Amino acid sequence: MTSGKNLVAGKWEHNSKAEQFQTVNPKTKVPITTIFQQATLDQINESVKGAYESFDLFAETSLKDRAFFLKCIQEEMLLAKPQILELYQEESALPEGRANGEFQRTIDQIQSFIELLHEGSLTQVCINTKGPDLRKMLYPIGPVVVFGASNFPLAFSTAGGDTISAFSAGCPVVLKAHPYHAGTSELVARAINKSLEKCKLPLSIFSHLGGQSHEIGRLLVSHNLIKGVGFTGSLSGGKALFDLAQKREEPIPVFAEMGSVNPIFILEDKLKTDSSLVKDLAQSVTLGTGQFCTNPGLIVVCNPMNTLDLANELSKSIEGLELPPMVHSNIQNQFDNKLEELESKGKLDTLYLSKSCSAAIGSIQATKFLKDLSLGEEVFGPFTLIVECKTNEEMLKVATLMEGQLTTSILGSISDQEISKKLLSILKSKAGRILFEGVPTGVAVTQAMQHGGPYPASTDSRFTSVGTDAIYRWLRPIVFQDCPNDLLPEILKNENLLGLKRKVDGEITSRAL
Amino acid sequence: MTSGKNLVAGKWEHNSKAEQFQTVNPKTKVPITTIFQQATLDQINESVKGAYESFDLFAETSLKDRAFFLKCIQEEMLLAKPQILELYQEESALPEGRANGEFQRTIDQIQSFIELLHEGSLTQVCINTKGPDLRKMLYPIGPVVVFGASNFPLAFSTAGGDTISAFSAGCPVVLKAHPYHAGTSELVARAINKSLEKCKLPLSIFSHLGGQSHEIGRLLVSHNLIKGVGFTGSLSGGKALFDLAQKREEPIPVFAEMGSVNPIFILEDKLKTDSSLVKDLAQSVTLGTGQFCTNPGLIVVCNPMNTLDLANELSKSIEGLELPPMVHSNIQNQFDNKLEELESKGKLDTLYLSKSCSAAIGSIQATKFLKDLSLGEEVFGPFTLIVECKTNEEMLKVATLMEGQLTTSILGSISDQEISKKLLSILKSKAGRILFEGVPTGVAVTQAMQHGGPYPASTDSRFTSVGTDAIYRWLRPIVFQDCPNDLLPEILKNENLLGLKRKVDGEITSRAL
Repeated sequence: MTSGKNLVAGKWEHNSKAEQFQTVNPKTKVPITTIFQQATLDQINESVKGAYESFDLFAETSLKDRAFFLKCIQEEMLLAKPQILELYQEESALPEGRANGEFQRTIDQIQSFIELLHEGSLTQVCINTKGPDLRKMLYPIGPVVVFGASNFPLAFSTAGGDTISAFSAGCPVVLKAHPYHAGTSELVARAINKSLEKCKLPLSIFSHLGGQSHEIGRLLVSHNLIKGVGFTGSLSGGKALFDLAQKREEPIPVFAEMGSVNPIFILEDKLKTDSSLVKDLAQSVTLGTGQFCTNPGLIVVCNPMNTLDLANELSKSIEGLELPPMVHSNIQNQFDNKLEELESKGKLDTLYLSKSCSAAIGSIQATKFLKDLSLGEEVFGPFTLIVECKTNEEMLKVATLMEGQLTTSILGSISDQEISKKLLSILKSKAGRILFEGVPTGVAVTQAMQHGGPYPASTDSRFTSVGTDAIYRWLRPIVFQDCPNDLLPEILKNENLLGLKRKVDGEITSRAL
Repeated sequence: MTSGKNLVAGKWEHNSKAEQFQTVNPKTKVPITTIFQQATLDQINESVKGAYESFDLFAETSLKDRAFFLKCIQEEMLLAKPQILELYQEESALPEGRANGEFQRTIDQIQSFIELLHEGSLTQVCINTKGPDLRKMLYPIGPVVVFGASNFPLAFSTAGGDTISAFSAGCPVVLKAHPYHAGTSELVARAINKSLEKCKLPLSIFSHLGGQSHEIGRLLVSHNLIKGVGFTGSLSGGKALFDLAQKREEPIPVFAEMGSVNPIFILEDKLKTDSSLVKDLAQSVTLGTGQFCTNPGLIVVCNPMNTLDLANELSKSIEGLELPPMVHSNIQNQFDNKLEELESKGKLDTLYLSKSCSAAIGSIQATKFLKDLSLGEEVFGPFTLIVECKTNEEMLKVATLMEGQLTTSILGSISDQEISKKLLSILKSKAGRILFEGVPTGVAVTQAMQHGGPYPASTDSRFTSVGTDAIYRWLRPIVFQDCPNDLLPEILKNENLLGLKRKVDGEITSRAL
């Protein structure tokens, strides 16, 4: 069903001399039959060149044409849904419910960009007719590289938010498939390739390259015709790509979303009174076997009277749980090693390892934690560290010393409001999203979402990788000064035939000029 | 009138042991009396610490309060206007008209941000009440460093676009004064300092540090509490700061506007028919003694029939001109050296040096130019290189090989429209602003302006350093999820007491929730 070939500037290329690799079922550890070919230097160059050569044409397609292209991707993915879901489950060992949910989320994400393109505000047209005639719009930055993410084989991979937002912007995409789910990725790549064909767009707008070596990513990010990079993954991976991109002769933006520990602050009265806390937290910590970017890895409680032994309660509630395996044995090994390291250092007050699954709960007094903040670094997987504070001041201190996060949460009762305010004032500089109820796992795909935070949560806190605003990563303003109407892009012409809402001399209007 | 002291976290500090320097009248070469003190490491640290400590409070000021602060800066600058203009002319040797014009431009720029703050759309509020209650707004990134620019002692310096846009965003500013006009800078810094006092804002929101050593800039940009940098100047200077900022433990954005050669393409029929071309171009090349970022350093003409010897005509028109000296003898020396180098290499077909001023005009055949593109690199000053093309294809080739630019111009007649279209398709990926009439010098301060282009014109083409959109460099999105109304920032509260236009569930409305 899958070929293992690379999709190079629109052509599925077989290379009998390529390095080979296979994907593995993380549960059974059995390799899946398809032999995948690692992309060669020539294939990388060919793909980027194809993306570059199709850029001008793709950049000038209408928003409607781009929306139709996305619609076709949805349709082609739905046609291949049974095969995609089957291979997804084989390659990830994630349960059917998750596979279905993530598939639907991917389709819904595409839908939100289709609607964005129909609505048209994304071009941010701004016209000034007084003085020189200035007409500003957003224009795509050029060909981009997108990396498939290990933890979301669909929603953050081949036709995930990065690719779809780049397509919506008018940027060709060279996709580096994640080797853990190369087959799922190939099936989705086929859907994109067929959609280009259906839309009569240049096939080289999308390439799909496989491989296990980091060298492929390095070559792609270093290529002088590439103008931007989308990545979701580890801090070390994202930072390496970022550094590489900044050292190029022409530095380019890298939007790396590198996860975080998403600290949850639980205030004194809340801890006393909220009876569903333990259940909610246990669920959030173990959701997706702890492999969500917004997984809460740090829970800071204000517990001067020892009202609730949260570490103990959480430990109890993870016992008996059965979790799917992590997406790859490498990730499981890293997780196990980190826990072992924490245990061997003996710096935590308690460390509880579930007997039924890989989940674990640690705890430490704030006074000790404040002396070694490295204990708060991310342990990617189903683990959380409880930091026990004796006073609000200790809690504020932990907040002050915290580094950048995707999310942070302040869970307080009405009677906790004074300290909530103080915490909030500190945390506003630390995170992209601040929650006051519920748990950070679960990221709604809407324009009001922000998924990205101060470094090291992501490399550019001014942008989001979830929600329709993700498109702004791939666009830059361009101004036409005193341009003849005939030469203007459709959306800037006097007639405004598309009836787009435009800002003209300070006023939002859809009238013609 | 000026003290030569540094303004450290709101206090004018005298340091008898500081390294000292003076400013010099570039025309008379006579040093101006004030002895300026170079900032020390302690003063740098103190300034950044002060900015950091005042950040939370400043970030939470209302838009109205920030507008009032800017209003006070305008007032204080107007009170000091006679002294500022006098010292400006002494330190720059620029004529009174330019001094007055730049002063007014600075006041007008501040006015445009005052209006922006009153209008309120800059917060980009986006609320989603379906699913989790998500309320997104833009929030300042933190304390920033701004570098005064050598070529605009007022409009791109102490209270210039970078500082004022950062203040509008709610970011404290540590300003590194340009040593060429340290006195003018100090006078403006006094106006800002007094304004903070008048507004009862923490004085440490603004520091003003002097010095001739690059080390001061390096220390500021490397400081871990600094979250962004604004710079206008040379490619080498901007790139050095950019590299430094990316190598930090926490990389930060550097918005360096590094100038460009702003190529003008003149099409065949236009060249034949436009009788005012020579005069307009000569004026643009020599404006401000060629020290504008948008100075046209490259003019590409399609001239197969030798209709017009543009190089010769321009050479004639710069003869007899008298230009003010460049802003500093260092810059003059660099200019002279670059011309000498061009001359000694003998690679140009002609190089004409004016006898009456420092202006110069070079010319070269496109075939030769295409073999050595380094000839197209910026010679900062009143110089332009004419590239003579025999065919439209040669012209398109020059365009294709061009690097990123702030502006580029396509000057064509109606009969040139076919080739204009082809050129435009290429140039859209090369510049932030494309002109079709007039000259690139002169940058209107409006929301529809874009001043910034693909690298190496600037380090981040997605942002502008002129016009009100410059504020977006200093803001990042932050989302409040399920936040109690009491804890929300004013502009996100249900009541919407300010009557701000907000995007609520996809609809723009100023109603309460």
